[in-house]
Amino acid sequence: MFISFEGGEGSGKTTVINKLKETLIKANKSVYVTREPGGTKISEAIRHILLDNNSNMSFHTEALLFAASRAEHIDEVIKEKLKTHDIVITDRFLDSSIAYQAFGRDLGVEFILKINDYALNYMPDVTFYIDVEPKDGLARTKNRGKSDRLDNEALSFHEKVRNGYLEVAKMYPERIITIDGDGTVDDIYERVLVHLRKML
Amino acid sequence: MFISFEGGEGSGKTTVINKLKETLIKANKSVYVTREPGGTKISEAIRHILLDNNSNMSFHTEALLFAASRAEHIDEVIKEKLKTHDIVITDRFLDSSIAYQAFGRDLGVEFILKINDYALNYMPDVTFYIDVEPKDGLARTKNRGKSDRLDNEALSFHEKVRNGYLEVAKMYPERIITIDGDGTVDDIYERVLVHLRKML
Repeated sequence: MFISFEGGEGSGKTTVINKLKETLIKANKSVYVTREPGGTKISEAIRHILLDNNSNMSFHTEALLFAASRAEHIDEVIKEKLKTHDIVITDRFLDSSIAYQAFGRDLGVEFILKINDYALNYMPDVTFYIDVEPKDGLARTKNRGKSDRLDNEALSFHEKVRNGYLEVAKMYPERIITIDGDGTVDDIYERVLVHLRKML
Repeated sequence: MFISFEGGEGSGKTTVINKLKETLIKANKSVYVTREPGGTKISEAIRHILLDNNSNMSFHTEALLFAASRAEHIDEVIKEKLKTHDIVITDRFLDSSIAYQAFGRDLGVEFILKINDYALNYMPDVTFYIDVEPKDGLARTKNRGKSDRLDNEALSFHEKVRNGYLEVAKMYPERIITIDGDGTVDDIYERVLVHLRKML
């Protein structure tokens, strides 16, 4: 089973994934957790270009670099770990590019789907999209300290991203489950579990 | 006017471009010569990942990185220089990805055109493809000394690339002019000039 988690900055998905991993391991499932760009040498080199605060690139270039990094993550990590584990969970996948690049950068869904043609062959079985108000999510990330090139975009950008996620959830209703991101991480986690218990 | 030159390793295109630039400047044309990845900061960083002999990546990743580098070259160099110069000449463009990735790497033309969707809006007015036997071209590059990750591919790879170029030339007969790459650089240059004189 291949699961992805999606959401804007400060949606709490990384903490939720860690809690879920613990629970699944206690239930005797073998679980592999990864996140884009997946820790491969090439993907990390691409990530460095993408998130460097000094990088200035066209939006088309940015979208293609995310697609390149994703292709490498699929081939080097996801395909391999799905062979050896019951469950592979990824923190972000294709829906991030639709939300951030197609909507946040106004590149359009058609362009993003074209350049991510390869990823369309390896879509998650289920995706949890944790929906939070951008201003609330960004307030949570402020406490983290460090911020990258995308965190530093204006609130209006993050609002376009959220709108993008809501549109993606409508595009793929059979795959994407929208989770209310209000409240504590434990609240959010419980909402995810309600759905997962039905599936597993 | 936007002109691209294409060809396999050792086809002589770089020398031909330099001779052409001199001739055009003498004829009072303003000429800007560029080559993929175009010397932009981002594209050079991508090129470093692509041509590093220690880089090992999936073919899909490679193709997407070339597409990303091309998008940046278009936005930062080609679009700008076409505004300020009579003629912009690029050493390699989209046809290189069709020859090297669609054919050389067997990724197929459809995939390469999808991921290069952006470049399709900025195609050259004319493309000179200099056709040489791969074994002859590679023999010429041996004299250069330094070789990169793509130069070091087996002869069979370069033969697939050449076959790819011949197919591309059939796909776009109104744009691509195939030039016989036998003989000296002066011979090749004269063959290019015959066509250019008719156009300019």
